[in-house]
Amino acid sequence: MTTESQQPVESSDPSSSVTFINIFEIAPEDADAFAEKWEQRAAIMSKKPGFIDTRLHRAQSPEGRFQLVNVAHWESQEAWEAAGADPAFADRANAARDSKETPVTANPGLYDVIVTFP
Amino acid sequence: MTTESQQPVESSDPSSSVTFINIFEIAPEDADAFAEKWEQRAAIMSKKPGFIDTRLHRAQSPEGRFQLVNVAHWESQEAWEAAGADPAFADRANAARDSKETPVTANPGLYDVIVTFP
Repeated sequence: MTTESQQPVESSDPSSSVTFINIFEIAPEDADAFAEKWEQRAAIMSKKPGFIDTRLHRAQSPEGRFQLVNVAHWESQEAWEAAGADPAFADRANAARDSKETPVTANPGLYDVIVTFP
Repeated sequence: MTTESQQPVESSDPSSSVTFINIFEIAPEDADAFAEKWEQRAAIMSKKPGFIDTRLHRAQSPEGRFQLVNVAHWESQEAWEAAGADPAFADRANAARDSKETPVTANPGLYDVIVTFP
């Protein structure tokens, strides 16, 4: 299988960089409001040491099971864990998770890239 | 919100490029065998007009609800649809979906990037 080193994450050490993916189950009508709050949290994370990049994806179809998917890259698991421990981020993340206005189920996890093309 | 044009997909027209995400629910012990077949299908797609890139992600934790996540970029929805219509790909994809050896639930969809950092 091909390796992470072929991917556009050259700014980090491919052998240690990690991919964080968060798959959100949320009603289509709640996705815009959730995305605005998500952007505020992402702005905080983007200033942390070891942050590489992040993208929030919105399903084109309102019928899609997973309306929002975040894919982020960090230089190491340690950097990602340290950034997430910042109360300024964690408090907002907990508030979003527990929101009554925009109920959401988040499915976060760390992933390795095991196949890439080209 | 920031725009796709800041992302590393400069090889395509950001205004028309699309992101295809496929979220796979599969038993951790079946993921390696599935990934090998997936790589064969991705090799076919990677030669099609309009293909930009694709990555198959593997959850680091066997407890993860979604063990495999594919994120691919195509220059247009039309190019992606045309590539997927190739029987050489479609037959293999259907076989994988219906496999008894490695039962899997695929959740494919087209997505727009609505927030990016940096």
